[in-house]
Amino acid sequence: MAEGVALILASGSSARRNLLRSAGLAFDVIPAVIDEAARLDAWRRQSPGAKLSEAALMLASAKAEDVSTVKPDAIVIGGDQILALEDITLHKAKNRDDARRTLLSLRGRTHELHASVAVATGGKTVWTHVETAGMTVRDFSDAWLESYLDAAGEALTACVGAYEFEGQGVQLFERVEGSYFTVLGLPLLPLLAELRRRGAINS
Amino acid sequence: MAEGVALILASGSSARRNLLRSAGLAFDVIPAVIDEAARLDAWRRQSPGAKLSEAALMLASAKAEDVSTVKPDAIVIGGDQILALEDITLHKAKNRDDARRTLLSLRGRTHELHASVAVATGGKTVWTHVETAGMTVRDFSDAWLESYLDAAGEALTACVGAYEFEGQGVQLFERVEGSYFTVLGLPLLPLLAELRRRGAINS
Repeated sequence: MAEGVALILASGSSARRNLLRSAGLAFDVIPAVIDEAARLDAWRRQSPGAKLSEAALMLASAKAEDVSTVKPDAIVIGGDQILALEDITLHKAKNRDDARRTLLSLRGRTHELHASVAVATGGKTVWTHVETAGMTVRDFSDAWLESYLDAAGEALTACVGAYEFEGQGVQLFERVEGSYFTVLGLPLLPLLAELRRRGAINS
Repeated sequence: MAEGVALILASGSSARRNLLRSAGLAFDVIPAVIDEAARLDAWRRQSPGAKLSEAALMLASAKAEDVSTVKPDAIVIGGDQILALEDITLHKAKNRDDARRTLLSLRGRTHELHASVAVATGGKTVWTHVETAGMTVRDFSDAWLESYLDAAGEALTACVGAYEFEGQGVQLFERVEGSYFTVLGLPLLPLLAELRRRGAINS
């Protein structure tokens, strides 16, 4: 770790925090306080027809800038992840019925996972990156779905898209086209390269 | 989980075991007893010029068959993973000097990770699959390498290639081209599809 540059993760996501910690980075965590749903609505109005990968970039950037304005000397990392079926963004399921509806809408189709990351300093975004993975859900049987809903329990409402990819939810999938870190939700290698360029970590 | 078909993992690898357990599969573990080095040497003599991805297939198949001969009624899963720099297979480092040599040989170059899986029943292999990821190591500084060797400690000699990809070793990399499960060392989705076809898990 290079000396003298404070590194801050502007995200409360434990997955992102764990990835950066495992990679050996020293950083503080200050979750950004932004209204993601309102920002996404505003973005849709302002950018009709734009790709949702750009919305993921906008949100990562908004999070990094939110924290950067109060910690202008630090290097602040923001991240976001959007799951989308065509033009529809997927959310956490409210309950079992909601999870069933979501999973049936994904059956036999490919949805996209957009994983974005942004770096801000002095209150301004100075770098962004986004990657997309194609997630193809197999044509599972109705009986299988019910047994999955039984087995997954609480996890169903904890994960966007109503599947826990690192658990039994992987049985939903026929094919995943995307890199290791995209699927984990943080494009880690481009981020590390940017942090090296900025002297925030040693090269 | 379907009833009536015993599923066995012919591998002592905790990574493979954990992946299958996380996916919700019920199975026994019976590690195959084969001399991998001797098999690889014999394969090289018999198959001059063949790709190392085929050697990974041969080893996965040998492991599955080894256990399948004593458990012919079960569905036995074998897996293997080979890291290769051109024609040279990488091994676990014996000590710090050995790890340094290995990492210097990888610096600024792309090596390959071949992840294979085989299914055997009745003592015979009935299905195999192999995937390859391209792992590009960045042009790290000598000083960075020494600090990495300090930080990694014991992990250096525990991992093939002298890097722990899910730890600080990720800082070695510039680019990784390969799917999520290839990097994890087990092509899980094709394996699950095959187990569904064979009625070993519900579909």
